[in-house]
Amino acid sequence: MNTVRERYLATWNAPDDAIRSQLLREHWSESAAYIDPLTEAAGLEAIGATIAAVREQFPGFVFSVVGEADAHHRQVRFQWGLGAADAEPVVIGFDVVTIDDAGRIEHVLGFLDRVPG
Amino acid sequence: MNTVRERYLATWNAPDDAIRSQLLREHWSESAAYIDPLTEAAGLEAIGATIAAVREQFPGFVFSVVGEADAHHRQVRFQWGLGAADAEPVVIGFDVVTIDDAGRIEHVLGFLDRVPG
Repeated sequence: MNTVRERYLATWNAPDDAIRSQLLREHWSESAAYIDPLTEAAGLEAIGATIAAVREQFPGFVFSVVGEADAHHRQVRFQWGLGAADAEPVVIGFDVVTIDDAGRIEHVLGFLDRVPG
Repeated sequence: MNTVRERYLATWNAPDDAIRSQLLREHWSESAAYIDPLTEAAGLEAIGATIAAVREQFPGFVFSVVGEADAHHRQVRFQWGLGAADAEPVVIGFDVVTIDDAGRIEHVLGFLDRVPG
């Protein structure tokens, strides 16, 4: 399940549309659904557009792992950070990610633990 | 969504099969699914049996709220405690609960934050 977390954050960190699209097709279920406090996206195209929009909002920022992943059955929970490379994250989020029988990301239930005051 | 948490914990605290069954039918989706580190249950009957088994394992213990619920869209996250009434909980859990369009509990994605050493 550490792999799931890595694939998930790699998708968020993809440097361009082509790589992001490839990672979505490779590691996410076609019926994937993503919900966080600010957005709801169903399907790979909508999820890709959501990620692209967030990246435009935070140019130069990267997503990073925070703490340990905690996984069982087909679900994993973990925190992540968003901030400048090699700096303290300005945003800390928390996601529960579920996978399908093929190990692809199916549902993302996202929450925010720290947002800039 | 505080209501969802209350309904959820009320189901866990139901004192007998009849009341638990009533709460499940009233507040849970027929297609509800429950997963925690120790068990996986699909459907109201299996979920009811899971709850009954846990309650037999911890006679006299009650489930209680811990901290605040954090909700958006159709999902809520919260911690809960399990222990003797009016005592420090011996188990602390964490759940993400999603609801269907009718406001009924649909998916429970459970994790454990503290278990007795």
